[in-house]
Amino acid sequence: MEKVKLAVVGLGSRGYGILRDLVLNMDNAVVTAVCDLYEDRVIRAAECVEKAYGEGNRPFTSSDYKEVLDRDDVEAVLILSAWESHFPVAIYAMERGIAVGMEVGGAYSVDDCWKLVHTYEKTKTPFMFLENCCYGETEMMIMNMVKKGLFGEIVHCEGGYRHDLRDEIAFGKEHRHYRLRNYLTRNCENYPTHELGPIAQILDINRGNRFLSLVSVASKAVGLNAYVSDTPSADQSLAKASFAQGDVVTTIIKCARGETITLNLDTTLPRAYSRGFTVQGTKGMYQEDNRMVFLEKDMAGKDHFNVRSEWNNEKEYLKEYSHPVWVEYHKNGIRGGHGGMDGLVYDKFIECVRKKEPMPIDVYDAVAWMAVTPLSEQSISMGGAPVCFPDFTNGAWCDRKSDL
Amino acid sequence: MEKVKLAVVGLGSRGYGILRDLVLNMDNAVVTAVCDLYEDRVIRAAECVEKAYGEGNRPFTSSDYKEVLDRDDVEAVLILSAWESHFPVAIYAMERGIAVGMEVGGAYSVDDCWKLVHTYEKTKTPFMFLENCCYGETEMMIMNMVKKGLFGEIVHCEGGYRHDLRDEIAFGKEHRHYRLRNYLTRNCENYPTHELGPIAQILDINRGNRFLSLVSVASKAVGLNAYVSDTPSADQSLAKASFAQGDVVTTIIKCARGETITLNLDTTLPRAYSRGFTVQGTKGMYQEDNRMVFLEKDMAGKDHFNVRSEWNNEKEYLKEYSHPVWVEYHKNGIRGGHGGMDGLVYDKFIECVRKKEPMPIDVYDAVAWMAVTPLSEQSISMGGAPVCFPDFTNGAWCDRKSDL
Repeated sequence: MEKVKLAVVGLGSRGYGILRDLVLNMDNAVVTAVCDLYEDRVIRAAECVEKAYGEGNRPFTSSDYKEVLDRDDVEAVLILSAWESHFPVAIYAMERGIAVGMEVGGAYSVDDCWKLVHTYEKTKTPFMFLENCCYGETEMMIMNMVKKGLFGEIVHCEGGYRHDLRDEIAFGKEHRHYRLRNYLTRNCENYPTHELGPIAQILDINRGNRFLSLVSVASKAVGLNAYVSDTPSADQSLAKASFAQGDVVTTIIKCARGETITLNLDTTLPRAYSRGFTVQGTKGMYQEDNRMVFLEKDMAGKDHFNVRSEWNNEKEYLKEYSHPVWVEYHKNGIRGGHGGMDGLVYDKFIECVRKKEPMPIDVYDAVAWMAVTPLSEQSISMGGAPVCFPDFTNGAWCDRKSDL
Repeated sequence: MEKVKLAVVGLGSRGYGILRDLVLNMDNAVVTAVCDLYEDRVIRAAECVEKAYGEGNRPFTSSDYKEVLDRDDVEAVLILSAWESHFPVAIYAMERGIAVGMEVGGAYSVDDCWKLVHTYEKTKTPFMFLENCCYGETEMMIMNMVKKGLFGEIVHCEGGYRHDLRDEIAFGKEHRHYRLRNYLTRNCENYPTHELGPIAQILDINRGNRFLSLVSVASKAVGLNAYVSDTPSADQSLAKASFAQGDVVTTIIKCARGETITLNLDTTLPRAYSRGFTVQGTKGMYQEDNRMVFLEKDMAGKDHFNVRSEWNNEKEYLKEYSHPVWVEYHKNGIRGGHGGMDGLVYDKFIECVRKKEPMPIDVYDAVAWMAVTPLSEQSISMGGAPVCFPDFTNGAWCDRKSDL
C-alpha cells in the first residue's frame, strides 16, 4: 500500500498524543516531518517517531511550518497547533497542494473563514475538518436513526462542550496552553464544533439546510477566580484576574428549514463531562444526559412523569441501530483515543487523501461551524443581538447532495 | 379556627381538581362561591361542595366573576380560569379588597403587568402567585443547599416546561381548553413560571437581583400537525392548520448580577415530562434530567467522564438537605396533587390571608416572571433581538430583603 507522507504541525498535548497513540500505528501513513514552536516538543516527537519506525528513521524537524510545507516529501498535513494558527497553516498548505486535516476549534473572524473558502475554490486542495465527535458511537447511531425516520421530522437539537477545564486553563502558563490567553481576553462560544458538527450533519447543513442566524449570551466569569483562590499551587496572580470569557455561554442557532439548536460552552465550573447531545423530532427524542432514547412507539403505556427505568436504554438501541461504520469498527478493533472517535476521523482523512475521494467534512462545513465563534463574540458584545451567518456556499447549499 | 371564605373562579380541569381534591379538605378555608363561564362546570362544582360540606350547604354560583366578587361572604379568591382572564379577575378582586391567589400562566402584555402592580400599590390587597413548583421537594432542597453555599456562587440556571400536551391541545375544542386558541395564534414562551419561579427565588430576583433582558428563538411548528395526522380521533381540520406556536421555544435571560438562565417551552413533541431544572455554581451543580447532585467536594477522585453511578443520587442528599418545610410535611402527611406541591402553595396562601402575613410570592414576583411571555413574543418576532425587562419595583429590588 502506498502510504501518505504526513507532516504533523503542533506537538502539544493533543498533537503528541495523536502522533504517538494513533498516527504512528496507522499502516496507510508515514510521518516525514514534525513541527512545533517549542524545540523540546519537536525533539520529543522526533524521538517518538524514530522509536516507532526504527533507528535512523528520524523525520524532518522544524519550528517553522512554512519550512515543513515547502518540502517535497509532504503530501498531507495534520494541524494540531494552537487555535490561532489553524487557518494560516491550512491556507499555506492548500496553496502548495498539500492536503489538510485540521483539528477543531473556532475561527477568529468571518474573514478568515472566507479566506479558507477562497483558497479551497482556487486550489481544490483536499481539506478535512477533523471533528472527532461526528464519529462518536452515540452520535452515529442517532444519525442512523434520524435517517431511518425514527425520530420523525427533526425540530430541535442541543449540544455543547461541557467540560471542566479549570486545571488546564489555570495552569496554562506551565502548560504553554493557548486557552489561558483566550479566556483572559475573549468572550465567545470558543469551542462550538463538539457538538455542533454532529448536529449539523443530522440537520443536513450545507446539503439542503443552513445556519441562518444566532444569538449568544454569556454569564459572568467567576469560575476560574474561585478555582485559583481554592488551589494554592495555581498561579495566584490569576485569583483576581479579570477573565473576559463568561463561564457559561448559551447560543441559539436558527436554521433555514426552521429547526433551532441550543449550544453551550461550559468549561470553567465543576461538572461531569457532557456534550449534552439532544435531538427532538415529531416521533421521539434522544438525550445524552440520561442516555435515553424516547421513541413514541416504544413508550406507549409508560408513565411519562417517571422514566427512570428507561435511563441508559441507549445501549439497547445500539444493538439494532448501531451505525454500520461502528459495527465494522467493533469487529476490526477500536483505535485511538476518545473512545475510538479519533481513530475513525483520522483514518477517514488519510483514506480520502489516498483514494482521492471527497472529504466528508469539507471546507464549507468547517467554516459554517467555526464561524459560530466570531458571530457569538459579536452577539455577546451587543447584548445578545441576532447575528447572521454568511452563506459560504453562495447558494450551493440549496440542492447540494449529501456526500457523507 | 376562623376559616377564610373563598370564591373559586375557573372550574375546568385544574379548577375542579384543586377544589375537589384539595380546597374542600382544607380546615382553614370554606368555599362560599364558585364561578365559571360554563354552566355544567358550575353545577358540577356546586354539587361537589355540597357533597363535602353536607346537604343544603351549596355555595353561591355564577357565570359572572364580578357578581361573585361583589359579595360580602368572599374574603379571598382563587383564580384558576383561562390565562386570558387572570389579570382582569385579579384586578377586580384587589380593587374590592378581596385577597387574590392567582394560578400560573404568562401575561399578554407588559401593560397588564403594570396594571397589576399599580392596583396592588393603590389597594395593598394581599396577592399571591400560586407557583406550585416553588414548593417542589427537589426545588426546595436545592434552594436550601444554595443558601447554605454548597454550590458556591451561582452562575447559570436552566429550567423549562417540557410536557407533551399534544392531546390536550389537539382535543382542545372538546376540552374547551384555552391552550388551543393560544397555540393557533401566538408564538412565545407561553408558560414560563415553571421553572422560572424556583430559579428566580434561588437568584434573589426582586431581592438584590433582577431580570435585565432576554432573547427568545422559536423552532418551526410541526408537532401538532404530525400528531393530529397520526390520530384519527382528533379534529382533522387541525392536521393542516397553521399553528403559530413554535414547538420548542428557547429563551436566555440575563440577570443584573451576571447570571444567565436558559428557559425552555417544549409542549408539542413526544417526550418524558421534565422541568429541566439545572443549577450551576462555582462549587457544584444539580441537574434534574439525571437527578444528580454534583458537588466538587463529593466528587474528588471520581471519573468525571462517566458518572452514571451518581445518577439519581439526589435522594441521598435529601436525607441531609431536605428543606425544613418538607421534613415537616412528610411528618404531617402530603396533601394535594403534583406530589404535594399544590397542598403547600395553597395552604401557604390561605395561612397568609388568615394571619395577615406578607405573601411569599408577591405581585412583583408574579409580573417579573409572567412578563417573560410578552417579552419573548417581541423577541421572537424580531428574530431573537434582545428585549429589556421593566423594573416593576422601580428600584426597590436593589436592597429589598428576602421575605420567603
